[in-house]
Amino acid sequence: MATSPTGQKILRLAIIGSGNWGSAIAVLIGANIKRQPSIFQNEVRMWVFEEEVNGRKLTEIINQDHENVKYLPGIKLPDNIVAEPDVVKAAQDADMLLFVIPHQFVSKTCQTLAGKIKPDASAISLIKGLSTETGKIGLISDIIKNTLKIECGVLMGANVANEVAQQQYCETTIAFRNLRHGEKYREAIQTDNFRVSLVEDVTWAELCGALKNIVAFGAGLIDGLYGDKAGNTKAAVIRIGFMEMIDFAETFFPGGYRGTFLESCGIADVITTSYGGRNRRVAAAFAAQPNKSIEELQTEMLNGQQLQGPGTAEEVNAFLKQKNAEDDFPLFTAVHRVCKRDMKPQDLIAQLRDHPVHRSNTQHKSL
Amino acid sequence: MATSPTGQKILRLAIIGSGNWGSAIAVLIGANIKRQPSIFQNEVRMWVFEEEVNGRKLTEIINQDHENVKYLPGIKLPDNIVAEPDVVKAAQDADMLLFVIPHQFVSKTCQTLAGKIKPDASAISLIKGLSTETGKIGLISDIIKNTLKIECGVLMGANVANEVAQQQYCETTIAFRNLRHGEKYREAIQTDNFRVSLVEDVTWAELCGALKNIVAFGAGLIDGLYGDKAGNTKAAVIRIGFMEMIDFAETFFPGGYRGTFLESCGIADVITTSYGGRNRRVAAAFAAQPNKSIEELQTEMLNGQQLQGPGTAEEVNAFLKQKNAEDDFPLFTAVHRVCKRDMKPQDLIAQLRDHPVHRSNTQHKSL
Repeated sequence: MATSPTGQKILRLAIIGSGNWGSAIAVLIGANIKRQPSIFQNEVRMWVFEEEVNGRKLTEIINQDHENVKYLPGIKLPDNIVAEPDVVKAAQDADMLLFVIPHQFVSKTCQTLAGKIKPDASAISLIKGLSTETGKIGLISDIIKNTLKIECGVLMGANVANEVAQQQYCETTIAFRNLRHGEKYREAIQTDNFRVSLVEDVTWAELCGALKNIVAFGAGLIDGLYGDKAGNTKAAVIRIGFMEMIDFAETFFPGGYRGTFLESCGIADVITTSYGGRNRRVAAAFAAQPNKSIEELQTEMLNGQQLQGPGTAEEVNAFLKQKNAEDDFPLFTAVHRVCKRDMKPQDLIAQLRDHPVHRSNTQHKSL
Repeated sequence: MATSPTGQKILRLAIIGSGNWGSAIAVLIGANIKRQPSIFQNEVRMWVFEEEVNGRKLTEIINQDHENVKYLPGIKLPDNIVAEPDVVKAAQDADMLLFVIPHQFVSKTCQTLAGKIKPDASAISLIKGLSTETGKIGLISDIIKNTLKIECGVLMGANVANEVAQQQYCETTIAFRNLRHGEKYREAIQTDNFRVSLVEDVTWAELCGALKNIVAFGAGLIDGLYGDKAGNTKAAVIRIGFMEMIDFAETFFPGGYRGTFLESCGIADVITTSYGGRNRRVAAAFAAQPNKSIEELQTEMLNGQQLQGPGTAEEVNAFLKQKNAEDDFPLFTAVHRVCKRDMKPQDLIAQLRDHPVHRSNTQHKSL
């Protein structure tokens, strides 16, 4: 085991995933841990789902040219980021595992890794989505934790990937039940322009990251319908969606901390995604082009990247139906129905006029 | 006194002010109370500070053409909105007074009205700003309340005036200590597309309306510096500013209700103003044109309308200096210094890297 001159263990990181967000975070981490050789091993393996790009393997392109030409073109990866097509090799010997793959692949990937990682490793999930494998809504971090039998925190925040890679100033939130683990991840990730707040409320931080995509999709519908002449309407949709996020967390995952919604993972991410993310962009196109499906627009607009909002809206809707609670979440419900073309985007507003947040004569009880 | 067939008093409204926001709200109110003759008298006098526009008196234009050509051009005012150049005549016999004038004129206007209004009238302030008349920071609604000896609530929300006048869907917040008064204002103002939440926390609702202009100015600086390539940065500035608003309220005006910040007057207004308002717009120009002062840009860009952000930033800064608390509000302080050209807009970010909201190892205590 590698140790520093003071006898401290020198930690090895692995990044499991190499899409747009995974590659962006690799840009920060590679450069950042180079500056901290007494804490972190220099080499960081990054699992790359192998594919051919212009006749070359993507791992080969990354390792020779230090650029993920498919998912983060135009930005150099540090040379200590080493692409590895075998996920077991990528993860072995790592003390800290960063998961940043599409949420539908988490379970299978973790099953492949189970028993083959260091038993005292920890993990952090950068994945924005929910699990519905068990027939009810669950957290991605719980799948990682339960399958690998290690602690798993989350990193969630107002972090459009390309801007992070370009080192524009931003904030993020790391949540860990064990704050000492969280501190290590902060050391690996925080830079002058990527500021980390550390909190303990993993569950609500992760819910924020998933649910905000529904809200952003709703905000994008307003953009598609009314352009930039409806700032008030868009702000109302964002606020109402934000209140539904809080109500959802409090109702179905009680025990979190209201302040988590005021961290970067909460309100700031809702804002960023509602004004700049791909859910917003596709939603705007979806509202403006009534003859196209989400799937068609995704293929046309996203170059292989996944859109989370409609899927999360569907999963949340199935769950709300089970709980007989669709009417308590009019925006979540309406976004799902619009995505299925069961409701016109134009009818979204009608669902919000008598929203529960307006019904009470005095302040909403859960505030 | 006018009464309905059931013996209920029929209420008379007056609008004190006729700028962009006053004219927009007059569009809603005029149409809305016409539909409720058993509750409200049809005629609503609107005090207009007399000026000449194209050789005609503005009151005459409004009363003949039903359009405020200077401050809300292109939109018809209902014919029951009657422009009145004498503020005492505008207010006399009114049961409900809506104040919507620049904040620096409130005190003088109220002194003119004192003793000349109905003793059982109530008032609502739509004015976004703070008072510094008494040498310390105070609320506009308190000036109205104390000068006129009547109850005064506030209406604050994510309400860009032109969009409200065009009847785009939006939300707003009415705050009244006496909710029965608040209900009457809601009846007069709420329409299908202007949804009112009613709360009791007048003080924090009003603080939101004033302080958000500082935040929006900060957000606009980011726009001016980096265009639309810094969504993360802008969201961080907005969130940090929002946290400073909460801290400011809790520190200096304790006793409010945290949930007020989640109403339309809070987070939604911060968002709307940071993406669409005039403070944002002038701030972006200010950051991009380092040789111009706020005053020059205001003259060039705002057609006589007031910009609240820099003035509020200055008032808040003077107050924070007195309290020796500038360092606890780095964004408020930096925005003020940038406005005075004591700090370059580019240096704003450096002030936020070690912001108090990031310092703590666990969740911010006041959340």
